[in-house]
Amino acid sequence: MTRRADYAVTRTPHAADLIGQEGSAQRIPTPALVLDLDLLERNLAYMAVHCEKYGLGLRPHAKTHKSANIARLQMEAGAVGICCAKLAEAEALAAKGIHKLFLTSPVVTPGSFARVAELTRHVEELIVTVDNQKTALELDQAAADAGVVVGAAVDLDVGLHRTGIAPGIGASALAHFIDGSANLHFRGLQAYAGHLMHVGAFEERKAKSLDAMHQLKEMRDSLAQEGIACEILTGGGTGTFNIDPEAGVLTDLQGGSYVFMDREYNEVPIANNAPIPFETALFVQNTVISNNVPGIATTDAGLKSFSTDADPPIIVSGAPDGASYFFFGDEQGGIALADKAQTIDLGAAIRCVVPHCDPTVNLYDWYHCVRGDVLVDIWPVDARGCSQ
Amino acid sequence: MTRRADYAVTRTPHAADLIGQEGSAQRIPTPALVLDLDLLERNLAYMAVHCEKYGLGLRPHAKTHKSANIARLQMEAGAVGICCAKLAEAEALAAKGIHKLFLTSPVVTPGSFARVAELTRHVEELIVTVDNQKTALELDQAAADAGVVVGAAVDLDVGLHRTGIAPGIGASALAHFIDGSANLHFRGLQAYAGHLMHVGAFEERKAKSLDAMHQLKEMRDSLAQEGIACEILTGGGTGTFNIDPEAGVLTDLQGGSYVFMDREYNEVPIANNAPIPFETALFVQNTVISNNVPGIATTDAGLKSFSTDADPPIIVSGAPDGASYFFFGDEQGGIALADKAQTIDLGAAIRCVVPHCDPTVNLYDWYHCVRGDVLVDIWPVDARGCSQ
Repeated sequence: MTRRADYAVTRTPHAADLIGQEGSAQRIPTPALVLDLDLLERNLAYMAVHCEKYGLGLRPHAKTHKSANIARLQMEAGAVGICCAKLAEAEALAAKGIHKLFLTSPVVTPGSFARVAELTRHVEELIVTVDNQKTALELDQAAADAGVVVGAAVDLDVGLHRTGIAPGIGASALAHFIDGSANLHFRGLQAYAGHLMHVGAFEERKAKSLDAMHQLKEMRDSLAQEGIACEILTGGGTGTFNIDPEAGVLTDLQGGSYVFMDREYNEVPIANNAPIPFETALFVQNTVISNNVPGIATTDAGLKSFSTDADPPIIVSGAPDGASYFFFGDEQGGIALADKAQTIDLGAAIRCVVPHCDPTVNLYDWYHCVRGDVLVDIWPVDARGCSQ
Repeated sequence: MTRRADYAVTRTPHAADLIGQEGSAQRIPTPALVLDLDLLERNLAYMAVHCEKYGLGLRPHAKTHKSANIARLQMEAGAVGICCAKLAEAEALAAKGIHKLFLTSPVVTPGSFARVAELTRHVEELIVTVDNQKTALELDQAAADAGVVVGAAVDLDVGLHRTGIAPGIGASALAHFIDGSANLHFRGLQAYAGHLMHVGAFEERKAKSLDAMHQLKEMRDSLAQEGIACEILTGGGTGTFNIDPEAGVLTDLQGGSYVFMDREYNEVPIANNAPIPFETALFVQNTVISNNVPGIATTDAGLKSFSTDADPPIIVSGAPDGASYFFFGDEQGGIALADKAQTIDLGAAIRCVVPHCDPTVNLYDWYHCVRGDVLVDIWPVDARGCSQ
């Protein structure tokens, strides 16, 4: 029914002509991801300085931003490499020149071993995580078939029980297999305690995180006694950025959300109930399209324009005080006004903090980059939808 | 920072080489939208026959499928036109040859009036809905500026209170303005009772729907007395497909979800508690990527691969009886096994009914079209992300 050439999907943005115009940030066709570059840069700098202060590497996670431009800024700020959640995400960033990549999720799906071998040829460094013997064998074979040496790390399950292998004899055997293979290059261990990132009480989050890091340290020491050195011990996240250095075991931190922040992370306190030091740099801008009903304005951003796995968006500008956003179907949002006598003009731009940044970004093809009230650039979400 | 050419986003699928191979449906790189064409065709035929039986037009909603191929099948089955939720969605379908379009949501965002005028030049029929005088004036001006006549319908609020103008004097004035403008062509009324589509009790849904349709009928009759004929009276949806004909007022039905179905609509009973007659044709296929933890298998489809605004996906194949899917973060799903002694092989393909079809489709670039166990084609989701 379709011709082969039709398989490709190409899109161009509507806002390109607005770039550089005064007040253009208010006129972006919506719903749109709006990225405040001044705040983004402050977040990038804060985390870079933090890691440097503790002598840690930073291996930020691109699953949050899926953007080669942001990955490049992170590398320029001193990152040791970029994490990707999926192989297709790594392929998309590699195609845009990001050449030090670490794959945090096991590669198992059909055809993916050959794709790993192929990607290895094209980048400076690719490290994939492995959590079982079967995958290690298939990866070894694919590397041999392609005549490349594939970098691999063992994914350690320190309590999340999602991916990874429990610390112990099985994990040790896996490290030995990789280390002994001529087609694989053992690089170290990953330990991600994702179940702890949003634990509300700081002291509880800290105690559990230190315990998870202790499991990693024991595994590292045990491998060292068996003659295997771990060059890389990677893990952590935005929610434990100020806990992980104390554990003294990770060689690099993996935070992702710190670049943008979102409603979820804004509600996670750090020590002494201080707010997390990163600033909200990412917003979804939407526009009022109907206002005939007292007390309600309807906007053009609904279930297709925000992730819905966390509490709803929070309005930061464009609506009177006390107004709140509610989902109003696939295509629309509702603004509940505090007073029925209030109204919002048709065409008004309303900016919202997103519920959860990663799945929200994954809905959009572009970042609309602003400084103050000016649209200054449009960046593609290069790896949008690249979950394969 | 980026060059202008970088604004475009282009992607190509991984599965093209599998097309036509025996058993290829099981080997699609995942997470992937899988569309069973045999079932899709049955759903399309059922609705076409249903509308024909009652002498109604069908104006199916593309916000569900965002696919020019499916819109074309609907037109070939007798549809009078295709509904779009957003202007960018209509533009994307028009670019692929769909030329009878009805825009169900008001057009208000910056630059959109000129885009409506431009699109009018390129298609056989474009009708936009209007729910207030200000928008009508701006549309009139944009049409005059472009030297085109824009088709318009009044969006009537029959109880959803999301968009639309309440039946009465204001709505009548709006119809008169459009009818009297040399730059606009009054086509009729839209009345969508979206708040009733999932009402669980059939008799309640029926009573409320007939009341909403009665409001539409009164408005039509009142306009007729004032000398304005409504050529088009459009509304309805999958949840009221067998109620709307009885009201005897709509000229055409707007269902969207009937092409695919999803968990939400599968749980909506029709008369006598019979199941809805449409079959589930759309699935998300995901793959087991880790199985080290007793009682759990981890797949590669999480919050970025399913909509999360309804109850979780339902497994239809690939896992033992009694297994259920749960969200396990942005990138992964969990399969909770009924018995801890059970396991699922790494690489196993698991097919799930999606929670809510529209926002799930909007996450993917392609439909992987299957017949039985063979991948037979790949169709782009042409208007994915086109919410502007």
